[in-house]
Amino acid sequence: MSLAVRYVSARTLETAVVEGAPPGAGEVELAPAYVGVCGTDLHIFHGDMDARVAVPAVLGHEMSGRVVRVGAGVEGWAPGDAVTVMPLRWDDTCPACQAGHQHVCQHLDFIGIDSPGAMQQRWTVPAATLVRLPDSLALDRAALVEPTAVAVHDVGRAGVQDGEKVVVVGGGPVGVLIALVARGVGAEVRLVELSAHRRLLAEELGLRTWDPAAVDVSELVREWTGDAGADVAFEVSGAAAGVESAVDVLGVRGRLCLVAIHSQPREVNLHRFFWRELTLVGARLYDRADFERAVALVADGTVPVERLISKVVALDAAPSAFEALEGGGDVMKILVDCGNDETGAGA
Amino acid sequence: MSLAVRYVSARTLETAVVEGAPPGAGEVELAPAYVGVCGTDLHIFHGDMDARVAVPAVLGHEMSGRVVRVGAGVEGWAPGDAVTVMPLRWDDTCPACQAGHQHVCQHLDFIGIDSPGAMQQRWTVPAATLVRLPDSLALDRAALVEPTAVAVHDVGRAGVQDGEKVVVVGGGPVGVLIALVARGVGAEVRLVELSAHRRLLAEELGLRTWDPAAVDVSELVREWTGDAGADVAFEVSGAAAGVESAVDVLGVRGRLCLVAIHSQPREVNLHRFFWRELTLVGARLYDRADFERAVALVADGTVPVERLISKVVALDAAPSAFEALEGGGDVMKILVDCGNDETGAGA
Repeated sequence: MSLAVRYVSARTLETAVVEGAPPGAGEVELAPAYVGVCGTDLHIFHGDMDARVAVPAVLGHEMSGRVVRVGAGVEGWAPGDAVTVMPLRWDDTCPACQAGHQHVCQHLDFIGIDSPGAMQQRWTVPAATLVRLPDSLALDRAALVEPTAVAVHDVGRAGVQDGEKVVVVGGGPVGVLIALVARGVGAEVRLVELSAHRRLLAEELGLRTWDPAAVDVSELVREWTGDAGADVAFEVSGAAAGVESAVDVLGVRGRLCLVAIHSQPREVNLHRFFWRELTLVGARLYDRADFERAVALVADGTVPVERLISKVVALDAAPSAFEALEGGGDVMKILVDCGNDETGAGA
Repeated sequence: MSLAVRYVSARTLETAVVEGAPPGAGEVELAPAYVGVCGTDLHIFHGDMDARVAVPAVLGHEMSGRVVRVGAGVEGWAPGDAVTVMPLRWDDTCPACQAGHQHVCQHLDFIGIDSPGAMQQRWTVPAATLVRLPDSLALDRAALVEPTAVAVHDVGRAGVQDGEKVVVVGGGPVGVLIALVARGVGAEVRLVELSAHRRLLAEELGLRTWDPAAVDVSELVREWTGDAGADVAFEVSGAAAGVESAVDVLGVRGRLCLVAIHSQPREVNLHRFFWRELTLVGARLYDRADFERAVALVADGTVPVERLISKVVALDAAPSAFEALEGGGDVMKILVDCGNDETGAGA
């Protein structure tokens, strides 16, 4: 018996008591400690992904927790081990997998969307998805390893180098994490974000920010780079204006990393791509190396994720947290506390 | 005294007798043999580039010819040497040049657009622009080295590898040259082109072609690739539908090389870039290594350019050739014969 938060229909979550089952062969039962609420969870909550999600659906894929029980044939894991989960299952047979790109498998099972997620007191996952956490890492901070792995993947796809000038368009959690990871490899970073609350938080983390409603970002980039343009831009806003800005700031051979989900086609200045020989790279999810790098960056403080945690709510209060997030306002990351962290948040 | 073809105003070319001057220090006077008419020349003829072109303007940047006289300080070149010209002058001081990308210098002088071109009986250029031609290469074929260098650059930017599956969208001269260069590195190629005349010509060169008005290109690519999608697509059509098709055919981690000039923003399916982790690379012009590779490919027959020459017209008939090209019809490449090739076309 375990309490779970389930999506039922547009704008409706329920808390339900669900039956547990012993982990099967190759599986591990976890006690989730903290689960972050992601933009994708909000899309599901809005009803935008009803065609993909089988209801009732337990949400959550940004998590930390401990091993409770291991199934037959599972080696290397024991009850009490602190873990996070790389929530991907691939088929290993499709052309993408055969080419070595399992994380974008053409039949990917994203756990927490396509199969039950972590917002429950007990959660069973394949042992192959586990990623070990160091004992020194508090479990609330560890719940941000997954979005940090996204940022590590994005920075890697863009090939950011020490000393490069990087513009991040969009300062939500992933945008700020990209800025911090890029800074960690030695880049100079400017973060473009409309929300004053998010800009202030980023400034407190030592990031330089620009308000695109108040300044001419392209002009500031020209001044900053001596008319060369930026080396790299990240489009994390999801807005048409964000795409335009990210293309406009790049110098010759600049790279634009596309992180945000644009559900409709966008007008793109392809002449600029031709004229300046720009590159656009799409980036989605992460692989195991990104995840392990993210654990290290969160653990050593290079990415100080604790400042991104706006609020921690109890599992049975998660539905109201979703409503609050939907209202917008001054929040960055909200964690759901599954009641399993004996040391408590912020330990 | 030398005859020259000059652009005067929209849809008006004139032939004029122009005064020659001895080549200055570091310059070389050439006797152009053949000059190809490029899409850019047609744009100028249409009046689309009046803001950039100073009239009267001698057109032409795809050429072959021989050295006539060398200026002071020029070493390594002698009268009679067969040459083509890489028609670029850069400032060596702008950020693009400083980063080693001189061919997209922020103040590039493209000879034949920004300064006088090759459609004349005598043409003076910096010695640094000369590229040597082997004696075995007929000068009419050599006039196609420049567009072949474009194709070499594009195939290089896309990183085409032996055995990859490549879709070229647009079968004009540059599209066909890209297909031939890609085939030369071992790729399997499909060429998508609306014109029956151009498809037939490409088929005669051993290329497989598809008519996008008659078949479902995306479906054919799925069948061809076992549902994997193509490794590389080239957008050479300049049309909105071409962009859509080039994005749609690519498999996971596919690369789209943008060759055509899109003077207006295009709607791009950015979700596909995210979902499949696609890459878009802009490609413009060429560098010296591309030019030298192009000379070798044309000389050894890997790129059989002679089949692309639809017609050769005398210098004083060039204005009527532009009118014919503007009417569309069944042409690929038209050469202007400057009357300087003693061996004659096709020698």
